[in-house]
Amino acid sequence: MLILSNEDAAALLTMRDCIEALEHAYRELAHARAANALRSDVITSTEQPDAVYSLKLMGAVLPALGVGVVRLNSDIISFGNKRQVKLPLAPGKRYTGLVLLFSVNTGEPLAIFPDGVLQLMRVGATSALGAKCLARDDARTVALIGAGWQAGGHVMAITAMRKIDEIRCYSPTREKRAAFCADMSKRCGVTVRAVDTPEAAVQGADIVLCATNASEHVFHERWLEPGMYVCTIRGPELEPGVVGQADIVAVNDRVAHANMNKTSGIVIPANRHAIAGLDPTTATSLADLIAGIAPGRTTAAQKTCFVNLPGIGLQFAAVGAAFYRRAREAGRGRELPTEWFTEDVVP
Amino acid sequence: MLILSNEDAAALLTMRDCIEALEHAYRELAHARAANALRSDVITSTEQPDAVYSLKLMGAVLPALGVGVVRLNSDIISFGNKRQVKLPLAPGKRYTGLVLLFSVNTGEPLAIFPDGVLQLMRVGATSALGAKCLARDDARTVALIGAGWQAGGHVMAITAMRKIDEIRCYSPTREKRAAFCADMSKRCGVTVRAVDTPEAAVQGADIVLCATNASEHVFHERWLEPGMYVCTIRGPELEPGVVGQADIVAVNDRVAHANMNKTSGIVIPANRHAIAGLDPTTATSLADLIAGIAPGRTTAAQKTCFVNLPGIGLQFAAVGAAFYRRAREAGRGRELPTEWFTEDVVP
Repeated sequence: MLILSNEDAAALLTMRDCIEALEHAYRELAHARAANALRSDVITSTEQPDAVYSLKLMGAVLPALGVGVVRLNSDIISFGNKRQVKLPLAPGKRYTGLVLLFSVNTGEPLAIFPDGVLQLMRVGATSALGAKCLARDDARTVALIGAGWQAGGHVMAITAMRKIDEIRCYSPTREKRAAFCADMSKRCGVTVRAVDTPEAAVQGADIVLCATNASEHVFHERWLEPGMYVCTIRGPELEPGVVGQADIVAVNDRVAHANMNKTSGIVIPANRHAIAGLDPTTATSLADLIAGIAPGRTTAAQKTCFVNLPGIGLQFAAVGAAFYRRAREAGRGRELPTEWFTEDVVP
Repeated sequence: MLILSNEDAAALLTMRDCIEALEHAYRELAHARAANALRSDVITSTEQPDAVYSLKLMGAVLPALGVGVVRLNSDIISFGNKRQVKLPLAPGKRYTGLVLLFSVNTGEPLAIFPDGVLQLMRVGATSALGAKCLARDDARTVALIGAGWQAGGHVMAITAMRKIDEIRCYSPTREKRAAFCADMSKRCGVTVRAVDTPEAAVQGADIVLCATNASEHVFHERWLEPGMYVCTIRGPELEPGVVGQADIVAVNDRVAHANMNKTSGIVIPANRHAIAGLDPTTATSLADLIAGIAPGRTTAAQKTCFVNLPGIGLQFAAVGAAFYRRAREAGRGRELPTEWFTEDVVP
């Protein structure tokens, strides 16, 4: 059994790997040859002040790539400043998010690794797959709202997916967006240009990627133009009218919404997956778009919207399987005895 | 972070530890200071013939004992002979069932260990806690249906819980029940006597423990006597009329039923948690009995029934926390760097 690290993932896993594995996985899901576990979040008290403990569970099985997966997050979340912030309280000021990969053919554990790099890559890759189905074929100009961790994943993904002429990036802090743009331009070989207002980013853009941690709207209905593809990774990012005005609205998954189980007295903010005016159970799913079961964009003038929510276990199965294969090819990772993680009694 | 084994659990964890930890945990659950994740089972195809792959996920958080827990099973299940059989196909002919324990105060992983010994002990301990609430105070005679792995856990638990004069054990295979009774009598210091018919076991018994892997009824309505406590760990064990005739019927949990997610074409047997005639959502929960929120037995003549189903993550949180504490006290287990299982990027 392999113990792998975020460094291994950053060194071995390409965005192209992720996109291909995800595309394969969504097609399997559309044809009911793969399945997600129901996602479940448990929120309880903790001894940490002004914080809650959150245990988040996802899972999926993807026989085509030979894997079952469990992704879990064990977080202390502070709500002190109205925005949820994960506190790095594990030894060495670290976070706890893990992916466990299993063989669907023997049941055995294949690998355990932190979720951080894969988490980033799968979100960006999924937004790019949305663009593949819903953006115009001649889309070349990207507006990016956000200059953080998730925004970086989106730049890597959209530039890996197709030829992009320019990315215009807006985020509220001038220094942060300038540094982000310089870094990303160098990394991706595409001009990522900082702009001073969100309007300067989105006006005339073919593809709009919202990739923030915002708890308020960052893209407004009045900004939606004919032919535009708009993607969001957090419920509050879009003004509800965007969904209402779009000709096609797709969601990452129709059914795998979180089952929230909170202990008495715990108050947490409204579901960040919820978008006003959108009933995800009746929306088009990305899986059906990718499999060609649902039609994608049919005219250049259509306004399209992809709600890249909620996260699903299948994404970790796909990207995790690709990572594991790369690690085996490269002979990387720490090998631990599989017997430590298996047993001779019937469980 | 500790890697622990079934051998460690067998050596360190006492049935008394389990019962105490579970009693504490159920009380916390009743007062909404602990919570279960929704259980989820994913069933898909596998390359193994006449078999399916099953990924089973449970989780819970129990702040009073400082832990969050994930319990998962990655199984190849054969349905060849009408009975579901887990196939030991991991290297060394082994099974894959794991418990991961986390700190609710730092989020960090505390321990990973196989689930086999804890699985057994928590089921037996829970049936014994049912007896504590629902059997007569003067109950001294036990009928045990079954002579396998789970039956052994029930003998250990009921004898740890209270003074028992005699256990009469029936199972279909004479040699197996004889060997089981000899072994258990020696281990528990209580006479465990093999009998040739189920009637000989149950007639006049104060406590009836059904602990089989049966897919048909092993206890019938006509056998239910005034004052009896009957417990089951599998839906098919009880003839439906038993539930109908009982004065008090309790379940292990009212809400944490499995969300089954199957891929197309996979046929699996009916839910082994289901008991005809029982609506678990309206039954009394063990948690409410233990916390005194629901009344237990009030007269010596009442017939009581405990459906020790479904399994819940909370049990692994409780028993896992007790095991971890014992392991730390004893300095046992393999210490691995916690950093292998944590990360410095926000997940």
